[in-house]
Amino acid sequence: MVAGLHATEGMRELLEEARRSNVAIKTTDEESLLALRVSDHQGVAAVVSPPKELDERDVYAASFGPDAVVVMLDGITDPQNFGASVRAAEAAGADMLIVRKRRSAPFSPAAIRASAGALFHLRVARVPNLIRTIEHLKERGFFVVGLDHQAPTSIHEAEPPSRPLVLVLGAEDVGLSRLVRESCDLLIAIPMVGRTGSLNAAAALAVGLFGYAIRPG
Amino acid sequence: MVAGLHATEGMRELLEEARRSNVAIKTTDEESLLALRVSDHQGVAAVVSPPKELDERDVYAASFGPDAVVVMLDGITDPQNFGASVRAAEAAGADMLIVRKRRSAPFSPAAIRASAGALFHLRVARVPNLIRTIEHLKERGFFVVGLDHQAPTSIHEAEPPSRPLVLVLGAEDVGLSRLVRESCDLLIAIPMVGRTGSLNAAAALAVGLFGYAIRPG
Repeated sequence: MVAGLHATEGMRELLEEARRSNVAIKTTDEESLLALRVSDHQGVAAVVSPPKELDERDVYAASFGPDAVVVMLDGITDPQNFGASVRAAEAAGADMLIVRKRRSAPFSPAAIRASAGALFHLRVARVPNLIRTIEHLKERGFFVVGLDHQAPTSIHEAEPPSRPLVLVLGAEDVGLSRLVRESCDLLIAIPMVGRTGSLNAAAALAVGLFGYAIRPG
Repeated sequence: MVAGLHATEGMRELLEEARRSNVAIKTTDEESLLALRVSDHQGVAAVVSPPKELDERDVYAASFGPDAVVVMLDGITDPQNFGASVRAAEAAGADMLIVRKRRSAPFSPAAIRASAGALFHLRVARVPNLIRTIEHLKERGFFVVGLDHQAPTSIHEAEPPSRPLVLVLGAEDVGLSRLVRESCDLLIAIPMVGRTGSLNAAAALAVGLFGYAIRPG
């Protein structure tokens, strides 16, 4: 960990915590911090291994409990939205997050930051073919629900979801891709009014999780 | 409106729409666009008046229906989170959004962008003293609910909310300020598990709105 010269109270707490955890600390100046190319650094930076990325075989090999919730992102490309979606999924107790290989945000520093660290705590798998993975999970008993703003059923009207559950979120601009939509067992909508008529991806996922998927029956 | 040289299909649609609405269009080059200091511009920029900001007197003078929902932000400073919160409030049909004068994100281009335009469609008031505004709204019959992760009642356990309703969201790091918390009629929590244990502000607001405030009784 590398700390700037001007320690605030928050930073002192952080340093103490780091010391307790036997993290090596190096105090340095502003210029050296900037040289690390960490933008918007708040005076402290940490050297970490990138989060481990799982693949399709890991999904096949993973064990899931009967109440498992898996979140699937169908084309979230913005790192901020990807990170905030991981954060929402982890805070809701999701067991795994699955994204597709193409047109997906990478595990970038911006994504890690927006995830508030959740990218280190949630299993995230990147698969080449979402449909194939959906079919695999269906065979293992998962019920697959897609968030789709054109769905006739709202999250409030839908029956409590069957578990284990896959909740699928589409891209901000075009929503779920056609084949993914057709693979879902149920499509539900977040009932929106107003002129904007949409939420950002992470907010929509949070509503889908806390307002539907993990709502007590 | 100023358009770059390389028009994509999306941009052609946008230009057509602009023409239909009698918006003056000027085609220009990359350099001139950059000179406008619009970062991440996607090839098009629009000259607009900033959204109108209301003040405390406007809140006092505003009329609210018996089912009104007012959203109050107690210290959201990040423009992205502020914009996404405005977007969520507008998409949920909120009647007004109230923020405090100090330690609040301004109506910056980043906020307007993150709001997906909602800042132009939702009344937003900036007031010097949130407590005074809460007391005013209580006198007008509003029920005031604060989102607080330490509250013993979850959004799923709480009774359907009384209307008209104020939903208050605290700052990302410290939550509701003490006096605001004490002014609330009810505090409710979004039930979170996992190691992150929190949502970003806009996601939390979206869950509070769609999972509680506008949920059908």
